[in-house]
Amino acid sequence: MNFPSTLVEEAVNELSGLPGIGKKTALRLVLHLLKQDMPHVEKFGNAFIRLRKNIIYCKECHNLSDREVCDICLSDKRDPGIICVVEDVRDVMAIENTGQFHGKYHVLGGIISPMNGIGPSDLQIESLVHKVLSGRVTEVIMALSTTIEGDTTVFYVYKKLSKLIEGHLKYTVIARGVAIGDELEYADEVTLGRSILNRVPFSKS
Amino acid sequence: MNFPSTLVEEAVNELSGLPGIGKKTALRLVLHLLKQDMPHVEKFGNAFIRLRKNIIYCKECHNLSDREVCDICLSDKRDPGIICVVEDVRDVMAIENTGQFHGKYHVLGGIISPMNGIGPSDLQIESLVHKVLSGRVTEVIMALSTTIEGDTTVFYVYKKLSKLIEGHLKYTVIARGVAIGDELEYADEVTLGRSILNRVPFSKS
Repeated sequence: MNFPSTLVEEAVNELSGLPGIGKKTALRLVLHLLKQDMPHVEKFGNAFIRLRKNIIYCKECHNLSDREVCDICLSDKRDPGIICVVEDVRDVMAIENTGQFHGKYHVLGGIISPMNGIGPSDLQIESLVHKVLSGRVTEVIMALSTTIEGDTTVFYVYKKLSKLIEGHLKYTVIARGVAIGDELEYADEVTLGRSILNRVPFSKS
Repeated sequence: MNFPSTLVEEAVNELSGLPGIGKKTALRLVLHLLKQDMPHVEKFGNAFIRLRKNIIYCKECHNLSDREVCDICLSDKRDPGIICVVEDVRDVMAIENTGQFHGKYHVLGGIISPMNGIGPSDLQIESLVHKVLSGRVTEVIMALSTTIEGDTTVFYVYKKLSKLIEGHLKYTVIARGVAIGDELEYADEVTLGRSILNRVPFSKS
């Protein structure tokens, strides 16, 4: 691309460095920004700098937070005995949107992926084990994706907690099955097979 | 969306304010930025602020520029007698990429679009007319899109320059036709019809 100005080129390069944004899209966005007034663009640019400067990870659940301990961890309406283990903050937001979970979270910050050089020590697994070992936890729900990496992580945590799991601790994974509203004939075999294996008693409610 | 922090929410809102970027994409990009180190994010945010603060429009052709007059307008290798009129900077970049044009440009900054409240006075039409009237220009090439708005703009400029066009000035539009590499049977009727009307003598080169 022949940029008319290095300033434009730099801005385009910064935006196209984001995942999924190409040079042409970046240029379109930069030209859009150029049409905004100065305070608007300053607010835009500073939002990311302020975020990066001030964001904290909750020291209990490692979710993003404004404060040392996040709202969910502080809440006394949530059961501290049930911990839902997720990969990142987007999963917390997705589960919170359902309104179906009233325990607390633990954000791993990723999943074990040797291909990408991510090992257990890069994740918040030790702190999860420590939290569970220190008592009061009755159930750990693993809500990770069903990829090889996700399954590996579920198994790794299982091994770490196996002594407790033989005792009182429940170790569960979220249900996999045919999505509500989906046609059976279009469900993939693995999902359909799993939904039959893991069938549940009919409930009228 | 239940954001874990207002800082995250603000950054997501800023990004999703850009055209074509939704909340989910914005969140994915913000989480990507959070994984970068502080200098990287500062460079990211400041690139837009610096661009908006320092960018100038070339006083000759109204293209984006670092300086008062852009490189193309300053160049003595380009024919000042031929002016290619385009909508915005992206069109200049696209034509420059072809390497086929050796005249100068005039960036209108948009096209006449009553639906969007853009009239001739919002565009750099007066300065184009003034440039052409002040002599030396032998040809004006209109390289606008073939929409109603583009055609309206071509006609408006034609009316403004009609006296000169009756004299020595050539007033042309870029060729429309079947794209190189395209199959005839898939070309739309209007384009195919135009390509027959505007046929050119065969050339062996």
